[in-house]
Amino acid sequence: MPMHGDDRGGAGQGGPLRAALAAWTELLGPAHVLAEPAMLARYGATTLPAADRPVAALRPDTRDSVAAVVRIAGKHKVPLYPVSTGRNWGYGDACPPTPGQVIVDLSRMNRIVEVDPRLAYAVIEPGVTQGQLAGFLEEKRTGLRLDCTGAGPDVSIVGNVLERGFGHTAYGNRFQHVCGLEIVLADGNVLRTGFGHYENARAARVFPYGIGPALDGLFTQSNFGIVTQLGVWLMPKPRRSELFFCQIRDHADLAPAVDALRGLRLDGTLRSIVHIGNDMRLLSSRPARGGGEGQVPLTIAARQSLRNDERIAAWSMSGSLTGSGAQVRAARAAVRRALAGPGRRLLFLSERKLRIAEFATRLMGGARAGRLRQLVATARAVADLNMGRPTGYFLSGAYWRRREGVPDSFPADLDPARDRCGLMWLSPVLPMTGKAALEFHSCIEPVYQAHGFHPLITLSTINERALGAVMTVAYDKEDPGDTERARDCYRALWDALAAAGFMPYRAGVQSMADLGRYSTGYWQITRRIKSALDPDGIIAPGRYDPLQFS
Amino acid sequence: MPMHGDDRGGAGQGGPLRAALAAWTELLGPAHVLAEPAMLARYGATTLPAADRPVAALRPDTRDSVAAVVRIAGKHKVPLYPVSTGRNWGYGDACPPTPGQVIVDLSRMNRIVEVDPRLAYAVIEPGVTQGQLAGFLEEKRTGLRLDCTGAGPDVSIVGNVLERGFGHTAYGNRFQHVCGLEIVLADGNVLRTGFGHYENARAARVFPYGIGPALDGLFTQSNFGIVTQLGVWLMPKPRRSELFFCQIRDHADLAPAVDALRGLRLDGTLRSIVHIGNDMRLLSSRPARGGGEGQVPLTIAARQSLRNDERIAAWSMSGSLTGSGAQVRAARAAVRRALAGPGRRLLFLSERKLRIAEFATRLMGGARAGRLRQLVATARAVADLNMGRPTGYFLSGAYWRRREGVPDSFPADLDPARDRCGLMWLSPVLPMTGKAALEFHSCIEPVYQAHGFHPLITLSTINERALGAVMTVAYDKEDPGDTERARDCYRALWDALAAAGFMPYRAGVQSMADLGRYSTGYWQITRRIKSALDPDGIIAPGRYDPLQFS
Repeated sequence: MPMHGDDRGGAGQGGPLRAALAAWTELLGPAHVLAEPAMLARYGATTLPAADRPVAALRPDTRDSVAAVVRIAGKHKVPLYPVSTGRNWGYGDACPPTPGQVIVDLSRMNRIVEVDPRLAYAVIEPGVTQGQLAGFLEEKRTGLRLDCTGAGPDVSIVGNVLERGFGHTAYGNRFQHVCGLEIVLADGNVLRTGFGHYENARAARVFPYGIGPALDGLFTQSNFGIVTQLGVWLMPKPRRSELFFCQIRDHADLAPAVDALRGLRLDGTLRSIVHIGNDMRLLSSRPARGGGEGQVPLTIAARQSLRNDERIAAWSMSGSLTGSGAQVRAARAAVRRALAGPGRRLLFLSERKLRIAEFATRLMGGARAGRLRQLVATARAVADLNMGRPTGYFLSGAYWRRREGVPDSFPADLDPARDRCGLMWLSPVLPMTGKAALEFHSCIEPVYQAHGFHPLITLSTINERALGAVMTVAYDKEDPGDTERARDCYRALWDALAAAGFMPYRAGVQSMADLGRYSTGYWQITRRIKSALDPDGIIAPGRYDPLQFS
Repeated sequence: MPMHGDDRGGAGQGGPLRAALAAWTELLGPAHVLAEPAMLARYGATTLPAADRPVAALRPDTRDSVAAVVRIAGKHKVPLYPVSTGRNWGYGDACPPTPGQVIVDLSRMNRIVEVDPRLAYAVIEPGVTQGQLAGFLEEKRTGLRLDCTGAGPDVSIVGNVLERGFGHTAYGNRFQHVCGLEIVLADGNVLRTGFGHYENARAARVFPYGIGPALDGLFTQSNFGIVTQLGVWLMPKPRRSELFFCQIRDHADLAPAVDALRGLRLDGTLRSIVHIGNDMRLLSSRPARGGGEGQVPLTIAARQSLRNDERIAAWSMSGSLTGSGAQVRAARAAVRRALAGPGRRLLFLSERKLRIAEFATRLMGGARAGRLRQLVATARAVADLNMGRPTGYFLSGAYWRRREGVPDSFPADLDPARDRCGLMWLSPVLPMTGKAALEFHSCIEPVYQAHGFHPLITLSTINERALGAVMTVAYDKEDPGDTERARDCYRALWDALAAAGFMPYRAGVQSMADLGRYSTGYWQITRRIKSALDPDGIIAPGRYDPLQFS
């Protein structure tokens, strides 16, 4: 990897960085230019086995100060690494992909600029978190909800959108539900996409494409600019919402279930994103277990027996149905027709039933109540996400191999990087067919086994035709051997998937150099665009730019 | 407009063009290199008052020959203007935005490369027409339907997608339902977007974004490359489909109806694109009338009396509901709750009822039967479009001011450019609120009046929050005075809309120079990207590039 940030004079204690730091300090004040080792260690905290640390961190709080920061960087040729809140767990957190970069931490830019309750959108800055927007919508009684991811209330919405992340609702394909980006370019100029560059445009927040070449896609998963604002579409709270769960007893039965799901997505019955977790993923999301059995990988027999003990199916599916009472009933009937079958258990759960179950488990005692309480808590977490109430419940998987388990604050105030969790995520996309799901699984299961890790896997219906897998490699970060094995396991998984044609929908800093393999032509073109927009490579060198490493 | 094709040596009978033509003739054979005046007149036929003619036309039939064509153009610096089938009626047809360009007619590239019935997609070339794909899906009994526009069976799907056109179904936002573009760039290299550049990618046709910067948007409404193939998503035929129609008696009642529609879109009840046409648009879509009353603009009183005679409401809405029987019933109830009200007449029409009505009108006689027959024919055309059967029925509006009316072949074999129709379309986007709809209308109605033209207007719910208007300026192309007034009217409409902030979602060659007004920053950036991808300006100079004209 010859061409790093260092080569362009950004790293080290060299002159350019010192000069730039002085200019930034004058611009932002010393409180918002951080270069002390303790602070950099905090920014450099990662769930990965290792990652490059930033050489400084800046905390501008307006678009104009971001533009000024960028101009200074350009003048001194010091590369910048923008993060929204820096919680890109499992993919590198706030860490840049190459050494010598200066973090631009946008978490102080946390204004909710506008909420339009009629047209159901919000305009937000990168520092706005899921919890903050959810709280605002509730407090102002807008009758609106947002799509949430399972990463908890403290993560940035913009950061996730720019990684083209997925949530849980009908707006779970998040990039498809944003409208109008404001971007600071490498020369400090500001670009507004869609109709936003027309000074008096009426439809700037309701029609994303504008007129002419549509540029939004360029600023996702890229290093072409710093997004400082965007419009995000919101949903009216449904009159009625109902969850459904489907347990798939045996692994082989995953195939017909996936095929049935595809039909339900294609015919429009299911619009929210359905998640299917395997047994170990479900176990790992039970915080009470802490770091327990996670310490030793299980044999197949032990895993089966654990499944039996815990009454966990090979795969568990959850999704939601919304609409009027009649619409939900009609959808429920369609789901039942498609998903009921041998080896599958289907359960529908209205808010009312869920409340009764919560009440009942509070009264009950004994082991059976414990299991039930667990189920009810999971259902509540799924319901919360679907109603736009972010919860950290599902982050417990990130703590699966941490010796201390989840913190006492669970499910609040989680931060796997700060808490020294060992965690890597890998997220290949597969066609939504039963056959592809089984092929995918046979591709990765032996790799997990060979390296002594539990496969924690979810499959999500990220659109009508594709499943997005999220594969967790959870390891004990305090154990150098385990850490080394985890790194090997991740690489072996990546290799096996890439060779089989299952490419990921996003990548962490650990994988940027690998994106160019098996590829023809694409990255040369993104590089030409990069050169046109950022000729000096000021913004996030190496980010989604594999040729930087070749 | 100093910088035209001529300036770069493409136009005229100069040496570079002659040399390029010789090379193209060697490549494609003389039958596919057209430069005779009669042929160029055919390619230059336009519904606009005037447009630049091409200096030659080439008809390559494979991606590789397109690449070779482009390389020759680059060598001789002759600009190319790619068209799929060239039927961009109302927006310039096949005509380039500046003189001196050579058409690359892709209509011979009409292969349906692949259809996957399980994952419900097709891979097609630019010459594939709506009618061709619909016929193929029917013939092969795939159980799939495609989204159709109202432009008839003979128009290109790719061409419309690249203009980000809108159809009628749940996949009517067409750009949102394509996956994987193959593009020949200005240097002759081939780019595949999404996961398509990974040689063995499994999800190339089911997940559009791939990984890294998403480039698809760049190749819509642009001049950055020549798209030679794309994947288009298809829908399973619904178990049940039902149309609904809502007549809005008085203009003022449009506002509450639009607000009600927004609710139905936001809550997911309506997923197909709902179209609302005004009285004159509806009248103009009655082919039997031919060029009749169209000749003289109507006074308000005469218009009201025509409405009464014809039993036409101020605005007429049509849409469709699909799903299982129970789902359609539930949706129907929700639509009724939201749309029924004073001054509105709501009608639901199943395929069965429509057939009975068709049968009945065939038996009936008299004037009343004539009106009923008209209604039934319109309903059938709407039903056909919604079921993926393209019809030319709604093209009759393009023939509204043509002296001879529609051709005898109606609704088949229509070509408004060939048939010398006078037609310009203008398509501003507005927020989906009743207030904005009325404001938009008061902005344009006086302009039509002042220039003596009928306002033919449709408003379509192009997503959950925006209405796409299509405004027709129909004129008598044989009358120079009418033609001049039409040109003035179009310009005045554009000016009024731009000043009011209602920007169009697409533009014709007549408007490319106007896109830069009221705008800050955007077109400088698209220009930088253009220079990176096509430094010599070989592909479609001026297309969605207003700075070319400044």
